[in-house]
Amino acid sequence: MRLGELPTPALVVDRGALERNLDTMAGAWPARRLRPHVKAHKTSGLARLQADRGHVGFTCATIREVEVMAAAGLGEDLLLANEVLDMRRLAAVVDAGSRVTVAVDSDAVLQAAVAGGVREVLIDVNVGLPRCGCPPEDAGRLADAARTAGLEVRGVMGYEGHLMLVADPAERRLKTAGAMDLLLRASADVGGDILSGGGTGTWRTNTAVTELQAGSYALMDTAYAAQDDVPFEQALTVLATVVSVNGSTGYAVADAGLKAFGMDHGNPTLPGSSVWYCSDEHTVFSPEDGAPLPAIGDRVRLVPAHIDPTCAMHERMWLVEGEEVVDCWPVDMRGW
Amino acid sequence: MRLGELPTPALVVDRGALERNLDTMAGAWPARRLRPHVKAHKTSGLARLQADRGHVGFTCATIREVEVMAAAGLGEDLLLANEVLDMRRLAAVVDAGSRVTVAVDSDAVLQAAVAGGVREVLIDVNVGLPRCGCPPEDAGRLADAARTAGLEVRGVMGYEGHLMLVADPAERRLKTAGAMDLLLRASADVGGDILSGGGTGTWRTNTAVTELQAGSYALMDTAYAAQDDVPFEQALTVLATVVSVNGSTGYAVADAGLKAFGMDHGNPTLPGSSVWYCSDEHTVFSPEDGAPLPAIGDRVRLVPAHIDPTCAMHERMWLVEGEEVVDCWPVDMRGW
Repeated sequence: MRLGELPTPALVVDRGALERNLDTMAGAWPARRLRPHVKAHKTSGLARLQADRGHVGFTCATIREVEVMAAAGLGEDLLLANEVLDMRRLAAVVDAGSRVTVAVDSDAVLQAAVAGGVREVLIDVNVGLPRCGCPPEDAGRLADAARTAGLEVRGVMGYEGHLMLVADPAERRLKTAGAMDLLLRASADVGGDILSGGGTGTWRTNTAVTELQAGSYALMDTAYAAQDDVPFEQALTVLATVVSVNGSTGYAVADAGLKAFGMDHGNPTLPGSSVWYCSDEHTVFSPEDGAPLPAIGDRVRLVPAHIDPTCAMHERMWLVEGEEVVDCWPVDMRGW
Repeated sequence: MRLGELPTPALVVDRGALERNLDTMAGAWPARRLRPHVKAHKTSGLARLQADRGHVGFTCATIREVEVMAAAGLGEDLLLANEVLDMRRLAAVVDAGSRVTVAVDSDAVLQAAVAGGVREVLIDVNVGLPRCGCPPEDAGRLADAARTAGLEVRGVMGYEGHLMLVADPAERRLKTAGAMDLLLRASADVGGDILSGGGTGTWRTNTAVTELQAGSYALMDTAYAAQDDVPFEQALTVLATVVSVNGSTGYAVADAGLKAFGMDHGNPTLPGSSVWYCSDEHTVFSPEDGAPLPAIGDRVRLVPAHIDPTCAMHERMWLVEGEEVVDCWPVDMRGW
């Protein structure tokens, strides 16, 4: 099938760019040094390519992601890097033979792990992002409490999410080092082998963690592409069809909108055009520099500003090589 | 089942508020005077309550919405108020016994209707929103071309979407009248019985259309709730669980984020609290006015800023009466 035959809107992945991104990251963070975060793509077909490069441990954000990864045969070492209170579904995954480790940042979540039947944890440490994570000085106490409760404590995690989009690499490096100092001190109190953290934005600046939790690098978006030291290629676009053209005002309307793009980082972009706005099923845009308007029926490939919520809105992603559609993967980890 | 037992995040609909919203609108726009837009809720179970009030014609934005409505037995008079170029799936719906009318704003889309086997159209007229719609002065020519091509022209539609959120009702009324003058003039050229347009924001100010295309009124969101003359109640919230609390900084983290809320109109709100930000699976907030922090495990009900993309992110919506869960509907019109 050719690209022009796909029904729109459609998530389209350039397979060559994807493979190059995976190879670049595997060169810097080989095998278990990378624990790819599946929340970015929610697609077990893509996770399998990551596992093929030796990244057999994965990071998940939801119970659904853990369940689907395990069912896909990718459950060798799954980290739920998020606090949850009802772990019964996770215990079922463990009982079926997968390894599941959960993040714990409070006594309440610790008790939930015990009650739910999950046996391995990381102590989740707040390293500056105002979100989950215990105070660094409480990590040792929490680890002791976990061990007393019969849990295996594999180490610590701390996500410096507030630093991912710091524009200046030198400033990002300095601030990342400060955040990771907190994690290292907590690790000394907690014990265990694992220091898990980082992401696509700090793939070059985080030198402390034993495993990087990057996810966006595989497919990329415009927010990360603006980073000077993040070389990954834009592998994902949303294919849309021009369905209406206004010649007098000078704009065109494509059939992908608010239900096809994560909008928290702003509008999608269209190279060579100015995007005016999105509504539920439409993106309105005009060509730049006096370029002619497209014709009704033309296809355009819009670049999402934020990949994670974008992927979660689509049922499937299509893999292409040039104009040829070579594969289709269900986005099978959507929902919760 | 009780509200506290639902897995989170979860779309929760207050059935009493929903029914009152439906009744209020049916009082002002009875039976076929309202053509409810299903894109707002994407749920045939909810559409059935609208049909029970005599609104047997519906507005759709996607082919999937048309297909699911027809399969649900709600296909008496479906309007696809959007331009599409491949109508083969619509022809299958027509052949199976449903009535489908499509919007047409160009010769290309007109030819697509002929080629696809759809037989009835409305001429889609641009009334000021920079999106689809032919120039008003071209509507008559397009209607003639449609009739020459063997299509039945039922009338005109024109959506004044740029006026929905004009804050001052008097200004909104004046501008709506100006937009509808364009539609009335096009209607005189086109013929047919139907003038279709309007929405929740202009339910009081649009006095020109023969049928109102409102959708948001049923469940509501914070963008429309800010309108003085839009009395519909907030019937939909996203239920979330507090999974982490930071006592020293003074914030809490709930387990619903960018994948649970349409974000184009901004963050969700939480009455009595200040929402700091959302990330993929979290909303971070702090209580206002010195109120105490919630406890881990507490439930909160966040109010989405924009209902349409929010509903499209969820697999199901739960109906509640007080704390009791009384029903569950699949959000069965998601996707395209």
